[in-house]
Amino acid sequence: MSDTPLFERIALIGIGLIGSSLARAIRRDGLVRQVAVCAKSERTRARVVELGLADSVSADPASAVSGADLVVLCTPLGTYKEIAQRMAQALKPGAIVSDVGSTKQSALRDIGPFLPLGTHLVPAHPVAGTEHSGPDAGFAELFQGRWCILTPAPGADEGAVERVAELWRRVGSKITMMDAAHHDKVLAITSHVPHLIAYTIVGTATDLEEDTKSEVIKFSAGGFRDFTRIAASDPVMWRDVFLNNREAVLEMLQRFSEDLVALQRAIRWGEGDKLESLFTRTRAIRRSIIEAKQA
Amino acid sequence: MSDTPLFERIALIGIGLIGSSLARAIRRDGLVRQVAVCAKSERTRARVVELGLADSVSADPASAVSGADLVVLCTPLGTYKEIAQRMAQALKPGAIVSDVGSTKQSALRDIGPFLPLGTHLVPAHPVAGTEHSGPDAGFAELFQGRWCILTPAPGADEGAVERVAELWRRVGSKITMMDAAHHDKVLAITSHVPHLIAYTIVGTATDLEEDTKSEVIKFSAGGFRDFTRIAASDPVMWRDVFLNNREAVLEMLQRFSEDLVALQRAIRWGEGDKLESLFTRTRAIRRSIIEAKQA
Repeated sequence: MSDTPLFERIALIGIGLIGSSLARAIRRDGLVRQVAVCAKSERTRARVVELGLADSVSADPASAVSGADLVVLCTPLGTYKEIAQRMAQALKPGAIVSDVGSTKQSALRDIGPFLPLGTHLVPAHPVAGTEHSGPDAGFAELFQGRWCILTPAPGADEGAVERVAELWRRVGSKITMMDAAHHDKVLAITSHVPHLIAYTIVGTATDLEEDTKSEVIKFSAGGFRDFTRIAASDPVMWRDVFLNNREAVLEMLQRFSEDLVALQRAIRWGEGDKLESLFTRTRAIRRSIIEAKQA
Repeated sequence: MSDTPLFERIALIGIGLIGSSLARAIRRDGLVRQVAVCAKSERTRARVVELGLADSVSADPASAVSGADLVVLCTPLGTYKEIAQRMAQALKPGAIVSDVGSTKQSALRDIGPFLPLGTHLVPAHPVAGTEHSGPDAGFAELFQGRWCILTPAPGADEGAVERVAELWRRVGSKITMMDAAHHDKVLAITSHVPHLIAYTIVGTATDLEEDTKSEVIKFSAGGFRDFTRIAASDPVMWRDVFLNNREAVLEMLQRFSEDLVALQRAIRWGEGDKLESLFTRTRAIRRSIIEAKQA
C-alpha cells in the first residue's frame, strides 16, 4: 500500500469473529503498521500465529496495549471492566480505546472510569456478523456495506472519533453516530430481542419429547432452520448482551409479548382479517430492507 | 424421456410458488403427459401461458380436473372446501386428489366429504418454500432433498398413496408418512409458530415511531432481517394456516410463551448462567440440522 497507515499500532483485545475479521481487513489493506493481539486461551494464540493475523500475540492486555495508538476490545461485554482495569496504566498518552460490543451504555460505563486523562474512549458497534465464532470464522469482507455505529460520550475528542470512523470506513463500513442510550434501544428491537426469541423457540422445540425432537430437525426447512441459525450464535457473547442491555430488552420484549397475545387472540377467535392485515404490512418491510441493500 | 409418464394428466389447482415449481419439475422430466392448470385470476392464467407451464389453462376447477388422473390443490387452505365442491362431480373414476397445504387435518376435513366413491384422497405436504410467491417464483429444484409428508386417512388406497409418493420422489423429495394430527403438531412448532413469531416481531418493530422505523431497516443486519424474510411470506396462505391449525398452534405458542417468560425473568434477575446454558444447548441443535443436511 502506498497510503500512510491510519495507525501505527493497533491492539485487538480478543480475536473472535469480529476481531479476526477486522485484523484480516487491516492486514489485507495495510491500514495499520502493526497488529498486536491479546487472547486469553493458549489455543487461540497459537491459531492467531498460524493464521498470520498479528505481528505480536500476548495473553496480557497490558503488554498488548503498550505502545498502541488504538486499542479495540473485541471480547464479550462482561470482560470489559476487568480488561479496562488491567490495561489502563499501560496505555500510551493520547491512545484511543474503542470496542465492537453490541451494547454501548455499558461500554461507556465499564471502560470510561478507568481510562487515564489524555486517552480517548470511542465506542463502536459494527452491525455485522454470522452465527460462527472464533478466529477461524472471520473474513475481511464482513463489514462491507454494513453500518458501524459510533457512540462517543458528549464532549469526546473529535479527532479521535474521526480516526476511528475512518478505520471503519476503510474496512467497508458506513458510519453513523448515535447517543449510546438510543443505540441500545434500536439494537434491542433489531438484534437483541430477535436473538432472544430465536433462542427461546429453538429451546421450546427441543424440549418436546425425544421423538418429536428428531422430527423438528427433519422438518426444519419449514421456517425453523432460520431460527436455529440465529440461535447458534456465541452463547457467552449473547449472555452478556442481555445482562448489559436489560432495560431496553425487557421493554421491547414487553411490546413483543403484547403483540403476540393479540395475534394469539385473533387465531383463537378466527379473526382472519386481522392476521392477513398484519402479514401484508410486514411483507412491505421486507421490501424496504431489500431496497436499503441490507438483505 | 424414455420412461413412461407416471400420470396421463395432472390438474394443478392454483399455480403459485409450490404449484409452479411442481409444474416446472414435471415438465422438465416428462413425469406427466399433460399438465392442466386452474387459476382464478386472468393475469395468472396469462402468465402461465407465457411461462409455458401448462398444456391447458382454465378458470374453472371442474373443467381443469376433467380427464385428470391426478388433481393437486395448490391454493390457500381456505379455498379447499369450495374447490372440492365445484370439482367433485367432474372427477374421473379412480382419480387421485392430493394437495400441498401446510395443515393436513383440515385437508381431510375440507376435501374428503365431497369426493365421489372410487376416487382417492392422498394429502401431501412438501416441506419446502421461499418467501416469494406467484407463478414466477417457482423453480424445478425447490423440492430437491426436502421432505414431503403424506397423510392419507386410515384405510386409504395403497396404490394411490404410492403413486403420489413416487411423483414426489421423482421431483427430488424424500417421503415420509404421518398421521394428519401428528403432522399438524410437528409443523406447528417447526413452521407455523416460527412464522407467527417472525410476523409479530416485524410488526412490533414497525409500530415503533416513524424515526425508529427507518433505523430498524438500517440496522436490520443485526438479526432482524432474517425475521423479515420469513415475515414476507404469502399473507393469505399464512392466514389460512393459522385459521386451520388453531389448536396445535395455540398449544405450541403457549409453550413458547412460558419459555420466553422464564428467559425474561432470567434477564431481569441477572441470571447469566441460565441464559448461557440455554444458548449453548440451542447451538447444538443447529449442528444437528447441518448434519441432517436441512440447513
